[in-house]
Amino acid sequence: MDKLHTFYYFLDLAGTFVFAISGAAAAKQRGLDLFGIFVVAYTVACGGGIIRDVCIGAIPPAGLKTWYYLVTAMVAAFMTIGLYPIVERLYRPVLLFDAAGLSLFAVTGAQKALSYGHNGQVAVLLGIITAVGGGVLRDILLNRVPVILEKEIYASAALVAALIVVLGSYIKWLSNDWIAIIALTVCFTLRMLALRFHWNLPSFSKTKEATDK
Amino acid sequence: MDKLHTFYYFLDLAGTFVFAISGAAAAKQRGLDLFGIFVVAYTVACGGGIIRDVCIGAIPPAGLKTWYYLVTAMVAAFMTIGLYPIVERLYRPVLLFDAAGLSLFAVTGAQKALSYGHNGQVAVLLGIITAVGGGVLRDILLNRVPVILEKEIYASAALVAALIVVLGSYIKWLSNDWIAIIALTVCFTLRMLALRFHWNLPSFSKTKEATDK
Amino acid sequence: MDKLHTFYYFLDLAGTFVFAISGAAAAKQRGLDLFGIFVVAYTVACGGGIIRDVCIGAIPPAGLKTWYYLVTAMVAAFMTIGLYPIVERLYRPVLLFDAAGLSLFAVTGAQKALSYGHNGQVAVLLGIITAVGGGVLRDILLNRVPVILEKEIYASAALVAALIVVLGSYIKWLSNDWIAIIALTVCFTLRMLALRFHWNLPSFSKTKEATDK
Repeated sequence: MDKLHTFYYFLDLAGTFVFAISGAAAAKQRGLDLFGIFVVAYTVACGGGIIRDVCIGAIPPAGLKTWYYLVTAMVAAFMTIGLYPIVERLYRPVLLFDAAGLSLFAVTGAQKALSYGHNGQVAVLLGIITAVGGGVLRDILLNRVPVILEKEIYASAALVAALIVVLGSYIKWLSNDWIAIIALTVCFTLRMLALRFHWNLPSFSKTKEATDK
Repeated sequence: MDKLHTFYYFLDLAGTFVFAISGAAAAKQRGLDLFGIFVVAYTVACGGGIIRDVCIGAIPPAGLKTWYYLVTAMVAAFMTIGLYPIVERLYRPVLLFDAAGLSLFAVTGAQKALSYGHNGQVAVLLGIITAVGGGVLRDILLNRVPVILEKEIYASAALVAALIVVLGSYIKWLSNDWIAIIALTVCFTLRMLALRFHWNLPSFSKTKEATDK
Repeated sequence: MDKLHTFYYFLDLAGTFVFAISGAAAAKQRGLDLFGIFVVAYTVACGGGIIRDVCIGAIPPAGLKTWYYLVTAMVAAFMTIGLYPIVERLYRPVLLFDAAGLSLFAVTGAQKALSYGHNGQVAVLLGIITAVGGGVLRDILLNRVPVILEKEIYASAALVAALIVVLGSYIKWLSNDWIAIIALTVCFTLRMLALRFHWNLPSFSKTKEATDK
């Protein structure tokens, strides 16, 4: 149990960190000021989790209450500002960090909903919302159609991770740690493969408008 | 009481269904992918209700917890994708479905807020939010000014419906079923007449900018 | 205690009023209809507080429950519509009202979070969210990047006010009234000076895109 909780907190912090970097990088590219970069970094990092906590009745939301989330988001934002040449030289850093955070948050989001006694559907939906909510809020703040709605396997990877967590908790063949590791790996791999090979879900409109970037 | 509850659930499901179709149609026209169409359909269908449930303390929100909302939204999204030629040939289908969902959600939203013991003002405001919240979220996701703010009698029709429900529950001249039916009819009629005859509320700016569709 | 509560309610109402005027003015300039102006006015006035109340567990949110918030927002919207020539002739009225509301809401938001027994970090964050949440929602509804993220000292002034309230409540050198007055004055002064002298926080991108107004 202790081990699980340590693992759980580690996942949560790691997810917070990589999402904050992805948010800070997007805000920096858009030319926001120092405070705007912090806000977007913090929103991407904690926004999905705050929506989840409000929906499961975890008041006040962990993203607001816990000092190390805030500090982690701040450190990530400072790192992105101060060490941007390094962050930038990594291969498509925003997309990579985004995929890691996506996997981590889908798993921890579904786990937390289950641990509050809610049913599997709530856990799957809130796993997805924890994972993609911050990114959707980022795109809304930066005034663009959320990238997850238009292309590539993104929220569907989070869906797979959350489903694995929920099914695993019902079937109980493996420990929760192993289920989490499997869910993480599958989701991250799926997302990176989708990016690498430009996998997309089918879209159905012939009159697709030019999307505003 | 049983009859009322059956009626209540029927209204809720019907509203969910038509709103999901309206969301899926808008997302499809915009060229979103399969998952994006689902997400927008589900958001339009359940978004307003989730905001309502969070505000009245109904945790977890029914839109997340209840399987038939999710299934209804999925069926509606599949129908819109698979049978789009049929959906499209209906007269302005999105607007029609939207008007039906608007009326249904304003009534059930106000009823649920009252049934949780909140006052009439909360019920009226949350009736409106239940009715228009999903559509506002849809327009925010699709990166446009929510259509309800710019033209035509829309949220004001929801206001009338919610007011009828609240006043009816105070005056108690009629059964709740009849009050709901009256509120539904008035709201739907008002909205369809506004669409047919291009009724608009007054706007006050001479320098109205071209609105981005 | 009575005096504090009277002061607290006065601050809350004054903040509601000035934020509603700022929202109504922005909606009117954008050419929204009568209902749209009300909605944006009410959203700016009560949106941040509703997010705060949902996060601290104050159900239903005061902005929905309390009749004088709604009436205050309505009066402000009517005033903006009816007396717009007067409102317009004031020097940059939207910015002035916005600065006053910002200070008032940061203080009352932090105070309310503390009074619900939450920790200092929650109070600071929710003070900021109460102060800037409504304005962010306004900009999202009007389909533009929230002005607070791009330029000028805005949310950072709210941060200072919320910090003063929280630190003051820990140190207890002064009565809460005086702490509130100091926090208000500092925040308002900071914001007006930033507007007057075009103080900005540093931004870090050389490829700043033209921002869409």
